[in-house]
Amino acid sequence: MSEFELIQRYFSKRQSPVACVALGIGDDCALMAAKGGTQVAISTDMLVEGRHFFAGADARMLGHKSLAVNLSDLAAMGATPRAFTLALALPHVQPVWLNDFSEGLFELASQHGCQLIGGDTTKGPLNICITVFGEIPEGQALRRDAAQPGDDIWVSGTLGDARLALACYSDQLILSRQDLQLSAARLHTPTPRIALGTALRQIAHAAIDISDGLIGDLAHILALSKVGATLWCDALPFGEILAKQNRATQYEFALSGGDDYELCFTAPRAHRSAVLEAGKRSKTHLTRIGYIESQPGCRIVDASNKLQNFAFKSFDHFQS
Amino acid sequence: MSEFELIQRYFSKRQSPVACVALGIGDDCALMAAKGGTQVAISTDMLVEGRHFFAGADARMLGHKSLAVNLSDLAAMGATPRAFTLALALPHVQPVWLNDFSEGLFELASQHGCQLIGGDTTKGPLNICITVFGEIPEGQALRRDAAQPGDDIWVSGTLGDARLALACYSDQLILSRQDLQLSAARLHTPTPRIALGTALRQIAHAAIDISDGLIGDLAHILALSKVGATLWCDALPFGEILAKQNRATQYEFALSGGDDYELCFTAPRAHRSAVLEAGKRSKTHLTRIGYIESQPGCRIVDASNKLQNFAFKSFDHFQS
Repeated sequence: MSEFELIQRYFSKRQSPVACVALGIGDDCALMAAKGGTQVAISTDMLVEGRHFFAGADARMLGHKSLAVNLSDLAAMGATPRAFTLALALPHVQPVWLNDFSEGLFELASQHGCQLIGGDTTKGPLNICITVFGEIPEGQALRRDAAQPGDDIWVSGTLGDARLALACYSDQLILSRQDLQLSAARLHTPTPRIALGTALRQIAHAAIDISDGLIGDLAHILALSKVGATLWCDALPFGEILAKQNRATQYEFALSGGDDYELCFTAPRAHRSAVLEAGKRSKTHLTRIGYIESQPGCRIVDASNKLQNFAFKSFDHFQS
Repeated sequence: MSEFELIQRYFSKRQSPVACVALGIGDDCALMAAKGGTQVAISTDMLVEGRHFFAGADARMLGHKSLAVNLSDLAAMGATPRAFTLALALPHVQPVWLNDFSEGLFELASQHGCQLIGGDTTKGPLNICITVFGEIPEGQALRRDAAQPGDDIWVSGTLGDARLALACYSDQLILSRQDLQLSAARLHTPTPRIALGTALRQIAHAAIDISDGLIGDLAHILALSKVGATLWCDALPFGEILAKQNRATQYEFALSGGDDYELCFTAPRAHRSAVLEAGKRSKTHLTRIGYIESQPGCRIVDASNKLQNFAFKSFDHFQS
């Protein structure tokens, strides 16, 4: 059973709608009515030792990443971070670890004006669960179900370097010390694309953050928007270190490597210059990588428009 | 280091205040500005296998309890439940377990009109982290810092039966099968006092839910309100099963046993009949157990006003 099926089967029961809930399960964030024509975007992510990070992982980077992956969900909705809660299970109290973890956490939080407002601490196998709250004007959230045929598909920054570090850690390939350092930085201290997300309000249609791999994450947009896509594999922005690898690795890691926390979004052709302007304003490199069409499914073509046959699976917690 | 000290030391840094945050760390819930003169009360609780519940615990009851302990935090603020998120780490996918867990969860959720709006699922040691959202008119939250000298101290329902079940499980004492069944129900399927909490708006001053033990939880009210208290140990409402135990056990479990999830609250003398009316409306038995005074500390006296010398500690995750 995949994570998606598990949620569908056990946690997507028909519930009586609650008036103040504008959007429930299924997007990067839920949306609830907030003050004066705004909505609060809410997302929760749980990080488990040995699963999302290695035992003995650097505590400062872990503090950063725990919040970053949550902020990334706010970015994918176009929301401005406001606050978060932290629930933390710790096997034992280690002052040095706690000091470093909280420093990494608060450093990123203060960069985004995001206040820790509550939480819970308990003894247990190391587990970090953060819930974030962001603000967005009503009706301006970038939802997964809003892509339309004819939309361009864009991606921010570069793809695949985080996955490259993972491959090196698991002896799938060898990287120079410097290359590992650079790609590991992508893996351990991702940059949530908050400035881009907010700049894309009323410009982009649909958006998602790439945590499980481009194809798999884009598939959520396609399914909820009831559309399909064509992607140009030779247009993909390979990470700086990934660019040094062979073509097969480049395609695989850029298309299905997770942990990049870049944004994949769609926007109407007519907004092409507005999109580029939003990229400039938010100092974020953007690449147009394909387009939305009404035919379901995702087709990947090369520069000569020849259909490619990739069979990459995106990451699933319950199938790996 | 206690849980309280840990939070104080590492997670109570000075943060730049965020406009929409009305109340941050330190109460049962945080408060954020919401639509049309309301606030949203937010609380998060993490339940760890082997810590908050036994390995192999009944999944249906666990689904109930996971949400109940969070709803109890809303009750302690006087908030009306609206929505929640669920983050769940599972060692493996067991359909029967998931079915039972989600049934217990949704049964309680629908009783309170509380909608599951999002979450996260991952592989890992069993860990359940719920964040709840409740609504309350601005300025009406029952805060821990609002007790005033002269206030009556009240407690809902009865105390100590949940602790009694725990004592039986750990062979501290023996209960008949039927008594264990009744006290275990208090432990495994607590009733969040939502109806009482909302009925106490504008009547009570301060409130807290009793999860770690009456004395320890009341101490949070006393510290934040900068007041003290006198409690009448012979007025305590012992649980039905606890009432059959010896006096020493009764005092200990009623004063320091956790997991009851009753409300302890303070209200001005002048509201005594309004409090009793709120109890009646919410069908909740209420007992007056002492009073707030300006002298710091908590004094426990018997029926003849003689000071008792109890040295019970409330539960702390990092000291037990």
